[in-house]
Amino acid sequence: MRISLARARLELRHTFRIARSADEFRESVIVRLEENGIEGLGEAAPSPRYGQSAESAERALASIEGALLEPAGHIEDALERAAGRLAGEWAALAALDIALHDLLGKRLGVPLYALLGLDPGKTPPTSYTIGIDTPEIVAEKIREADGFPVLKVKMGLGNDREIMETVRAHTDRPVRIDANEGWTRDEALEKMRWLEGLNVEFVEQPLPAADLEGVRWLAERTSLPIFADESVRVASDVPRLAGTFHGINIKLMKCGGIREALRMIHTARACGMKVMLGCMIESSIGITAAAHLSPLADYADLDGNLLIRNDPAAGATTLNGKLVLPEGPGLGVTLREGPAANALERSSAR
Amino acid sequence: MRISLARARLELRHTFRIARSADEFRESVIVRLEENGIEGLGEAAPSPRYGQSAESAERALASIEGALLEPAGHIEDALERAAGRLAGEWAALAALDIALHDLLGKRLGVPLYALLGLDPGKTPPTSYTIGIDTPEIVAEKIREADGFPVLKVKMGLGNDREIMETVRAHTDRPVRIDANEGWTRDEALEKMRWLEGLNVEFVEQPLPAADLEGVRWLAERTSLPIFADESVRVASDVPRLAGTFHGINIKLMKCGGIREALRMIHTARACGMKVMLGCMIESSIGITAAAHLSPLADYADLDGNLLIRNDPAAGATTLNGKLVLPEGPGLGVTLREGPAANALERSSAR
Repeated sequence: MRISLARARLELRHTFRIARSADEFRESVIVRLEENGIEGLGEAAPSPRYGQSAESAERALASIEGALLEPAGHIEDALERAAGRLAGEWAALAALDIALHDLLGKRLGVPLYALLGLDPGKTPPTSYTIGIDTPEIVAEKIREADGFPVLKVKMGLGNDREIMETVRAHTDRPVRIDANEGWTRDEALEKMRWLEGLNVEFVEQPLPAADLEGVRWLAERTSLPIFADESVRVASDVPRLAGTFHGINIKLMKCGGIREALRMIHTARACGMKVMLGCMIESSIGITAAAHLSPLADYADLDGNLLIRNDPAAGATTLNGKLVLPEGPGLGVTLREGPAANALERSSAR
Repeated sequence: MRISLARARLELRHTFRIARSADEFRESVIVRLEENGIEGLGEAAPSPRYGQSAESAERALASIEGALLEPAGHIEDALERAAGRLAGEWAALAALDIALHDLLGKRLGVPLYALLGLDPGKTPPTSYTIGIDTPEIVAEKIREADGFPVLKVKMGLGNDREIMETVRAHTDRPVRIDANEGWTRDEALEKMRWLEGLNVEFVEQPLPAADLEGVRWLAERTSLPIFADESVRVASDVPRLAGTFHGINIKLMKCGGIREALRMIHTARACGMKVMLGCMIESSIGITAAAHLSPLADYADLDGNLLIRNDPAAGATTLNGKLVLPEGPGLGVTLREGPAANALERSSAR
């Protein structure tokens, strides 16, 4: 099998500010696996939160020889071998996982959702994310989010009230709050009690990842459901969160791909927890992979591709906020021609 | 979609005696789903332990109209709708699940293991089951089990020592013990301590299903791993067993099919538990369906088809005990011509 890598510089429409970072662009590594004339596409959108960068992901992927992934159809074992080499580079692992599933779907001539036995009509709407910003820019983002039935509002930098007041001055749509570990226990309690009256669906990661005890304390004192993001990475993290968090945010880039995401979905359901599918800033490759799983999710936050202006790929779209899956085989993703292709910089081929 | 049902009377090679029952034959309901000229095969092997019979399974399946399962490719939703109608008839649900997966594999022209991204070379060996019997018949069964690297020995009717002494007089192969809820706590403790020195891999269901506290008590006092069978039916049962049982026995007929079995495998792994794939007395239809999943399992006990003398189907086989998956599309199962076909009695078509 032939593996080739390319760097994509994804330029954000707006500076993307959350509790721990602010970015003008993010870099992905696009992976192509070629076997018998069929090409599988994958993407690694590395996360600084986990000590990853485009460089580290690329370096990790460059250490994988094609033979390690053969035969491509034995995805379970190929990924287990790859995982052993990619320690800590979960976004790189996700890229291989996505590309192997794309290959399998293309080889069989069916979309990924069909391989999984899912109804493409059962996708949920995706929320549209409003980063932390000035009232003027928050207002502009709300206009951009027109047609999306639910907003995800980032908090955790001290101007939470100002942001929420701006949101509510412009729309009464339901809102999901994401504090990205940005609150203390007391702050979280105060903010969540205030948010209870503001048509909020749930609050994501109010406290630092390790503070499970704090979430238990919060859950006893507030009525809004609490979702884990940074507190949960893979399926084996899920059982100990049950009874504390109400749901989990699953991201392909965090867990290592479609297979682990399925394991997490099944484990969360068995533990009586809700399931959200989330994302990093990603191109339409990573987003579409997650979108194919979304008929299994209660909630989707798959707007990473909508927040960039030079998406190098085309795949899942949205219609009035609802995710629409492409009908092509595998992911159903195509790389764009023209200016967007500039986002791809060929970096290596092996 | 056209659904047709047929009853199969599966005649046992030997009376099959376990702690709670003794049978000369068992009845399965064979399901055929036909869509666009492609036929999917499934089997319901109902369990009296759960109040099911061939009649009740057949009645439940006869209540399902073909339209309820359409389109056949949306397996997740089709089964959710069917489950709502088949309350308590999990073997009937498994039959539909198996047939829908067979259909999908046949439509795409690949074996089920390939749809699941699994390596058919990674199947485990299956154990061969020795029911509760006289020393003479136990000895005969051990001869039948020649070539199988591990035996499953049923206990729980008072002659445990006699059986184990007979087994050990004939073979030093590793043994798995299955008490089928047949022991009291004190008996279990005594038996398990005795078994510790007899090359036993693990003990299955030593106590009644509901006695989780008893298993905790046993696990603190014995060194043999303890597996749940009657104590676990579906994925949502798994988390509360973690930390008590060391592993679970997953049966398609108990949980409702391939999809729920996958959910159980993923949940058990996330909970740090071992996974065994087991079976009822089944034809090669049900056994082959489970065998396709077996590359994901630590242990297999998939010999239900080997214990009958008129298997109406051919599918997975064994080579020196190791499961060998058929290469045909879907399950890769064919119905036998000739005498074995007599096991099928056409009962209804709709």
